[in-house]
Amino acid sequence: MVNVAILGFGTVGSGVAEVLTTNGGLIDKRTENLVRLKYILDVRDFPNSPYQSCLVQDFSVIEADPEVDIVVETIGGATVALDYTQRALRAGKNVVSSNKELVAAHGYDLLQLAKENGVNYLFEASVGGGIPILRPLNSCLAANALSQITGILNGTTNYILTRMIHGGLTFEQALQEAQEKGYAERDPSADVDGHDACRKICILSALAFGEHIYPKQVQMQGIREVTLADVAYADSCDYKIKLLGRSIRLENGTICAFVAPHLVSGENPLAGVENVFNAITVTGNAIGDVMFYGQGAGKLPTASAAVADVIDLAKDLNTSRHNAWGPGAEDLVVSPDILVSRWYVRAMTTSRAARSAFGEISLMARSGAPEGEIAFLTNAMTEPQVREKLAGMKICALIRALD
Amino acid sequence: MVNVAILGFGTVGSGVAEVLTTNGGLIDKRTENLVRLKYILDVRDFPNSPYQSCLVQDFSVIEADPEVDIVVETIGGATVALDYTQRALRAGKNVVSSNKELVAAHGYDLLQLAKENGVNYLFEASVGGGIPILRPLNSCLAANALSQITGILNGTTNYILTRMIHGGLTFEQALQEAQEKGYAERDPSADVDGHDACRKICILSALAFGEHIYPKQVQMQGIREVTLADVAYADSCDYKIKLLGRSIRLENGTICAFVAPHLVSGENPLAGVENVFNAITVTGNAIGDVMFYGQGAGKLPTASAAVADVIDLAKDLNTSRHNAWGPGAEDLVVSPDILVSRWYVRAMTTSRAARSAFGEISLMARSGAPEGEIAFLTNAMTEPQVREKLAGMKICALIRALD
Repeated sequence: MVNVAILGFGTVGSGVAEVLTTNGGLIDKRTENLVRLKYILDVRDFPNSPYQSCLVQDFSVIEADPEVDIVVETIGGATVALDYTQRALRAGKNVVSSNKELVAAHGYDLLQLAKENGVNYLFEASVGGGIPILRPLNSCLAANALSQITGILNGTTNYILTRMIHGGLTFEQALQEAQEKGYAERDPSADVDGHDACRKICILSALAFGEHIYPKQVQMQGIREVTLADVAYADSCDYKIKLLGRSIRLENGTICAFVAPHLVSGENPLAGVENVFNAITVTGNAIGDVMFYGQGAGKLPTASAAVADVIDLAKDLNTSRHNAWGPGAEDLVVSPDILVSRWYVRAMTTSRAARSAFGEISLMARSGAPEGEIAFLTNAMTEPQVREKLAGMKICALIRALD
Repeated sequence: MVNVAILGFGTVGSGVAEVLTTNGGLIDKRTENLVRLKYILDVRDFPNSPYQSCLVQDFSVIEADPEVDIVVETIGGATVALDYTQRALRAGKNVVSSNKELVAAHGYDLLQLAKENGVNYLFEASVGGGIPILRPLNSCLAANALSQITGILNGTTNYILTRMIHGGLTFEQALQEAQEKGYAERDPSADVDGHDACRKICILSALAFGEHIYPKQVQMQGIREVTLADVAYADSCDYKIKLLGRSIRLENGTICAFVAPHLVSGENPLAGVENVFNAITVTGNAIGDVMFYGQGAGKLPTASAAVADVIDLAKDLNTSRHNAWGPGAEDLVVSPDILVSRWYVRAMTTSRAARSAFGEISLMARSGAPEGEIAFLTNAMTEPQVREKLAGMKICALIRALD
C-alpha cells in the first residue's frame, strides 16, 4: 500500500485526485501495488466534494502521518509550497511537484534535501504539462552529450500568437480572447512577458546540462511588442513568429539560455505547433534532434505527468532516481548577445540604406505597408552587430530567426 | 564494472560501439558505474577496426563469460538472433535489442524467458530509431488508459512520399532516389509494402495495450499504388499522403491495428513530418495527444536508443523493468473494416454519379486531370460501405483520411 497526499485542491490538485481515482485500477496494476489517496490539503472548505473524507486543512497532519509515502505539491509559488516541500522531505516523504516556480528557484536545494533524507523529489509536471520530457531527458537520451534545447514552453503565448497569425487579431485582441477562454490570467504578465517560459527553460537546462540555472540569470523578452505587421512579413517568407525558450551549451562549458520571440521557418516542426500546444526539441550528439509535443497545460494533462511520477515512485519507494544537478554558478550563463543568427528587421528606411548597412539582405513584403517601411532578413550576425548596423535608422521591430 | 557484448558489427552495432566509446565518460557518470565494451561478435574479419581486441566470432565465448552483464543484439532477423537472444537470457544476461522483426515475432516468449531467468529484455531501439517512445509509453504515460497510437513509422516510405509531394517525383523515381541515397534497400519490399511499419505497430500496441499482436494479424497496405495524381488532389485541400501504422483499442477490448496510406490534414502535426523522420502520436484519457518526433533510423540515432537501454540496465542490473505483456489471442485483433473514416476517392465517373451514390461529397481539383476523372472526400463511413457505394464505378484510388 502506498499512501498519497495532495497539497492544494486547485486545478492541478483536483486533476491528480481525478486521475488517481479514474485510472486507479490500471495504476495499481502498473505499480504492482495499491496506490491510495489519503489526504488532500487545502485551506478552503469543499462541502460537496466527493473527496470530503480526504480533505484536511493542517499540513502537520500529513507531515506527522508515517503512512504517507508520497506528497504531491500543486500549491504553486515559492513560499508556503517551499515550506511544505522542505518539511515533507525532512519527514522522509517523497515529493512530486508541478510547481515550476519553486523548482526553478530552489530545485538544487530541494534535490539535495531529498538526497539527505533518502527520498526523491520529482517534477515531470513542472515543464510541458503532460508532455513527457524530464524523464526522457534523464533516461532515454542518457547516451547523448546534449547540446541544445529549444522549446515552445508557454501555451498562453502560443495561443495568442496563433490567433494573431491565423485569425488576424492584434496582440491585445488575442490576449483578451485568451483571457475569456481561461487560457490567460487577468494579470497576464507571467505568460506574456516570458516568466513562465523562463522558469521552464531553467529546469530543462539544469537537467540537460547538470547545473542549476536561476531565472534571474536568463535574459527574457515576451511577446507584447509583436505586431500584425511582423506576422504578415514573416508569413510572406513562410516563417511563423514563436516565443522560444532556448538553452545552448557552448564549447567552453558555459550556457547561453534566454527567452525571446523568434522567426521559425515553416520547415521546422516547431512552426506547426499551434494554439495552447507546447513542443520541445532536444539536440544530442548521437540522436540528432528529437521533438516532444503535446498539451503544455491543463488539468488532466498536467495531472497525468504528476501521477506518472507517483507511479514511478510507487513501483519502488526506496531507490534514488539519480535526479540531481550541481549548484550552478554566477558566470555559468552567458548573454545571447554572443549568439550568431539571421535577424528580421522592420524599420523606417530605404532598401538602399539597408543594403548599404548590411550588404546582402532578403527583402520581405506585405500588403498595406506604410510609405517608408521596409522589412528584411539579414545574414547571420550577433545582436550587437545588427544594432550597430541599424544605428541611425528608426527600428520598428528586431526579431531573431531560429536557424 | 558492467561488461557489454555487441552481437553484429553492422550499421547499428558499430554505432553502439561508437556511442559507448565517444560518450563513455558521461555514460560512466550517469550510471555511476564503469560501462566497458568487452566483446563484439561478427562472423566477418575487420582487420583495421579500432575494436580489433573486442572482436570474436564464436557466440559461446560471450555466452560462457560470467563477466558479460549486457548483450546488445543488432543482428536482425529472427533466426540466429533468436537463438543467441535465448541463449544469452538463459545464461543470465540482460539483452538489449534493436531487432523489430524478432520482437514483433517473439517478444512475448522472450520477455517470459527473461523473467524466468531474472533478467531484462529491452528494445527501445526497435521502434522509431532514436525517438524515445517505448520507455515513455511504459513510464511517463503510465497514469493514462491509452486508446490510440498513430505513427509515421518508416523513414524510407516517408522519404519517398515527401519527394513525391515536394519534388514532383513519381513513386518509381522517388524510390530510385531513396535507393541511391542509401535510405532504401535494393529489395525495397520490407519498407514500401509496409512490413517494417507493421512490425513496429505490433510492438507499440503490445506495450500500450498489454497483449502481444503478431504481424500476421495486422492488415497491411504499402505505398506502391500512391500516384502523383493523388498527391496533387490531396494537396489541393491541404492534405498530405502519409503511410501510417495505427492501433486503436475498441470498447470491447479488441484492437484494430493496421498499416495503410492515409490523407492527413495539414492541421495535424503528423502532416509536417518529412523526409526520413518518424513521429508517433499516442492518445491517453488524461494526457490527450502527445507526439514524439525524430530520426526513425540511422546508425547513431538507433545506437543512442540501444545505449539508453544499456545505461538503464547498468544503473541497476538486478531489478525487473516491469516490461511484459500477455500472449495475445487469435481474436484480439480486428480488421479496419469496422473503422469509420472519411475517404478520398479518385474514380472515372461524373460528380453527378458520385453525389447520387454518396450524397454530400467534397470535390477536389488538380490541374491536368484527364477527362472523366473526379476526386472527392466522402462523409465518414466504413470501407465496405464506401466500396458498396462505388460499385460499378471505375475506382482509381481509395485512401482513408485520418480524422
